[in-house]
Amino acid sequence: MHIDDLDTPALIAEKPIFEANLEIMSKALPGSRLRPHVKAHQSSFVAKAQNKSGHYSFTCATLKEAEGLIKAGLGKDLLLANECVNINSLKHLQKLAEHFESRVMLAVDSKETIEAAYQSGFKNVLIDVNVGLPRCGCLIEDSPKLSDLANKKGLNVLGVMGYEGHAVGLLDKNERIKEVQKSMEILADAHSKVGGEIISAGGTGTYDINTLATEIQAGSYVFMDSQYQKLGLPFNQALFVLSTVISVSRQGWAVCDAGLKSLGMDHGNPEIADCEVWFCSDEHITFSSRSSDLKFKVNDRIKVIPAHVDPTVAYHDRIYLVENEEVLDIWPIDLRGH
Amino acid sequence: MHIDDLDTPALIAEKPIFEANLEIMSKALPGSRLRPHVKAHQSSFVAKAQNKSGHYSFTCATLKEAEGLIKAGLGKDLLLANECVNINSLKHLQKLAEHFESRVMLAVDSKETIEAAYQSGFKNVLIDVNVGLPRCGCLIEDSPKLSDLANKKGLNVLGVMGYEGHAVGLLDKNERIKEVQKSMEILADAHSKVGGEIISAGGTGTYDINTLATEIQAGSYVFMDSQYQKLGLPFNQALFVLSTVISVSRQGWAVCDAGLKSLGMDHGNPEIADCEVWFCSDEHITFSSRSSDLKFKVNDRIKVIPAHVDPTVAYHDRIYLVENEEVLDIWPIDLRGH
Repeated sequence: MHIDDLDTPALIAEKPIFEANLEIMSKALPGSRLRPHVKAHQSSFVAKAQNKSGHYSFTCATLKEAEGLIKAGLGKDLLLANECVNINSLKHLQKLAEHFESRVMLAVDSKETIEAAYQSGFKNVLIDVNVGLPRCGCLIEDSPKLSDLANKKGLNVLGVMGYEGHAVGLLDKNERIKEVQKSMEILADAHSKVGGEIISAGGTGTYDINTLATEIQAGSYVFMDSQYQKLGLPFNQALFVLSTVISVSRQGWAVCDAGLKSLGMDHGNPEIADCEVWFCSDEHITFSSRSSDLKFKVNDRIKVIPAHVDPTVAYHDRIYLVENEEVLDIWPIDLRGH
Repeated sequence: MHIDDLDTPALIAEKPIFEANLEIMSKALPGSRLRPHVKAHQSSFVAKAQNKSGHYSFTCATLKEAEGLIKAGLGKDLLLANECVNINSLKHLQKLAEHFESRVMLAVDSKETIEAAYQSGFKNVLIDVNVGLPRCGCLIEDSPKLSDLANKKGLNVLGVMGYEGHAVGLLDKNERIKEVQKSMEILADAHSKVGGEIISAGGTGTYDINTLATEIQAGSYVFMDSQYQKLGLPFNQALFVLSTVISVSRQGWAVCDAGLKSLGMDHGNPEIADCEVWFCSDEHITFSSRSSDLKFKVNDRIKVIPAHVDPTVAYHDRIYLVENEEVLDIWPIDLRGH
């Protein structure tokens, strides 16, 4: 099928770019040096491609992502890198993991999350340490106490994790390096108190900078977005929202049929090559050409570049894998939802 | 089921507030004076409640919304208030409408959209007129030409529509009134050239101001959001993202499990009563209490108020209808997707 036959808006991934991104990353961080974060794509089909590139351990943000990976046969070594306290759903996941002989590690940063891990029958945890981003993670000085508490509950503390989310997007590379160093000094300190073989951290923006972590939790590198593009990383934009021009005004703007329900908006407007994006509505983008040579007409197809990949993917049911404008495969976004 | 037993994040609607909103609107704009826009809730179950309040004509933004309403028995009188040029999908919708004896009007603003309506077998159109928002809609002077073209193709032009989207959110009511008047003068001018019984316009922010339109396309009033709350309308916040506190820092913030994948972000951060929202991540909100009396602990449940209802609902599978913290019903968000 040609992409012109797709109903729009449609999420498309350019196979050659996607595969090049996979290759660059698997050369830089082969095998278990990368623990791909599936929250960026929420598709077990993309995770399978990452698995074919040599990675077999995965990072999840939700129980549903972990469940889906287990059911897809990719649950060998999972890290639920998020604090979860819903014991009923954790129990369900634990039973599933047991049945499929999956190892699922939980991140814990409090007595309540340790209690939830214990109550739901999990065996393995990482102590989540706050390394500078005001989000989850305990203070350094609390890490040994939590580790002791986990041990007392019979849990194995396999190491530490700490996400330097405040650093991954810094545009200046030197600043990024400096912030990552500061963060990883905190994590190393906590690790020296807690022990364990795993130091899990990092993201696409710090995959080549973070040298302390034993594994990097990058996800966005597979598809990229306009925000990550600003960092000058070797990964290229593989994911687009294919859209159709539905209205052209004689007053100088055009309108296409992508919008707030097909694009994550927290990083601002998406981009359209050689165009100025004016604003987005639920089902529309109003935009204009930057060049008098580029004129749009109704029925034209355009490729919209999302500003933030994760919340964009979460609006879609499927990704169309394309090459030379032909649809080669349809990959369900089967790990999304709550 | 008590709401504490729900997995979070979960979209909940407070039944008494929701019903009060329905009642206020159906008193102000009874029956066909309101053509509820389903894009705000994307649920045929909510549309059924609107139908019970006396409304039987509906506005849709997507083919999927129209299809879903028809299948749910609510397709008596639909307006697809958006330009659509995907002929295959339009044909499919037209056949469905014919089978269920639904009237579906299409908005058209160009020869291409008229051609698409004609090619796909639709009979009834409205001329979409640009009334000031830089989006779809033709210029006044083009409206008679388009109407003539539609007639020549054998289409019935039932009237005009024009959405004053640049006015619906203006905080100052006098300014809002002024802008609506300007917009409706344009629409009245186009209507005088085109004719037809329908003048369709308006939204929640102008439902009581727009006196020209024969029908108002309001949708958000059923649930509301923090943006619309600023206008001092008589509708109250009925929709919340129920979330669980998963981490509390000794440094002064807390983290709950709602985030960018459960909240539309184009209007900025969501709100939490008596709290300061710091920022949102994919699966987290970092926030702090404004009062020293309000302290959070892990496992606490909080109600997050979305900044923009439409793209929030589009992230969820279902709405839990609740009263006194008990779940009374589960309503699938069955009209979402593309």
